[in-house]
Amino acid sequence: MKIGILGTGVVGQTIAEKLVQLGHQVMIGTRDKQTTLAKTGKDNFGRPALNEWLKNNSKVQLKTLSEAASSGEFIVNATSGTGSIDALKMAGENNLTNKILLDISNPLDFSKGMPPTLTICNTDSLAEQIQRTFPKTKVVKSLNTLTAMLMTNPGLLPEPTNIFLNGNDANAKEEVKKLLVSFGWKEKNIIDMGDITTARGTEQILPIWVRLWGTLQTPMFNFKIVVVGR
Amino acid sequence: MKIGILGTGVVGQTIAEKLVQLGHQVMIGTRDKQTTLAKTGKDNFGRPALNEWLKNNSKVQLKTLSEAASSGEFIVNATSGTGSIDALKMAGENNLTNKILLDISNPLDFSKGMPPTLTICNTDSLAEQIQRTFPKTKVVKSLNTLTAMLMTNPGLLPEPTNIFLNGNDANAKEEVKKLLVSFGWKEKNIIDMGDITTARGTEQILPIWVRLWGTLQTPMFNFKIVVVGR
Repeated sequence: MKIGILGTGVVGQTIAEKLVQLGHQVMIGTRDKQTTLAKTGKDNFGRPALNEWLKNNSKVQLKTLSEAASSGEFIVNATSGTGSIDALKMAGENNLTNKILLDISNPLDFSKGMPPTLTICNTDSLAEQIQRTFPKTKVVKSLNTLTAMLMTNPGLLPEPTNIFLNGNDANAKEEVKKLLVSFGWKEKNIIDMGDITTARGTEQILPIWVRLWGTLQTPMFNFKIVVVGR
Repeated sequence: MKIGILGTGVVGQTIAEKLVQLGHQVMIGTRDKQTTLAKTGKDNFGRPALNEWLKNNSKVQLKTLSEAASSGEFIVNATSGTGSIDALKMAGENNLTNKILLDISNPLDFSKGMPPTLTICNTDSLAEQIQRTFPKTKVVKSLNTLTAMLMTNPGLLPEPTNIFLNGNDANAKEEVKKLLVSFGWKEKNIIDMGDITTARGTEQILPIWVRLWGTLQTPMFNFKIVVVGR
């Protein structure tokens, strides 16, 4: 599949690496290729600059947001939540029309220090804002509830855990589910929460997630829903 | 221990039953004893009216909020979140001074239909509001992340799950931890998240909790935090 990833941070890179391993053709989109390529040193997560990363991931093509969205049959939103709507507008509404958009972003505001607050919550969610802004795009929220390395390597966790789907289009959710299964998720552990408004639940799990990161001193964890009688 | 429970709903009743079993002296407080005793039929959870319940739980003493708080050495807030501050004011600041208040309430607003929204979130929490309103009370938030029957019977779950503590006073958290252990929680599964502001995380887990209730068609579930390498 031709997949366009929007966002070149740790989430975009991690998803791109996995998709290339799985044999997909991957375009990763950034606002400004020159600026992105000019960066040197490590990022906040200790990852190499994109320039270095691209040398080790030569099958991934660096594109503008618009080019990545235009050439992708399937789109991944891996941008920072506070910039997602702008980035998707730069990608171009026409380039997103009738396509599935896997939305991994979280509306986290780090500008007032740690832990971050949410820019949207309670009666709305970023996923809903994206769906309202791009009504012809099939938005499916998933993977936003755990750290990037575990999104594509759930088997690193010592036991099965859960991942969630939120979206209005049943077929689009099925396609995302297939992708998640190819990442190593067991189908029975993927919980379809319902329509896109249910993303209010999965996005608002972030406030406990960021605090658990501090308490556990590691981001390498995930939630397992344990049910009586199952 | 003499324990005053504020709130006669399903949470107050369930906690009261367990505390009596454990040999504590339990006072359960309500705003207006006459009104509460006059209720008949089943409540929204299919539980008998308090009048009936008291016949089967004759060791529990029905009191006003103020009486229950005054005679309790340890206080439990089991009122609805939207009414908690008012109920605690009726209980009386002096009756709460220097005491531990186990806060189980959630700021859920059911007035606009299901699923409920939060009346407080993101940059504040109900637990913080209570702590600010009653600065001489040692507020510890816990047990608000699962259904009443599992609060006092964690062993009904098919495997160990987690419960959280939020509060400013380390000794108060230790006392609450002892109570939770007496309820059946394993000490290693009780996660101390930090000061009272960390209740923003545990209260904001409710939006996914209420939606999981719908998706799973049962409230009998809990969260387990699975960590790589542990």
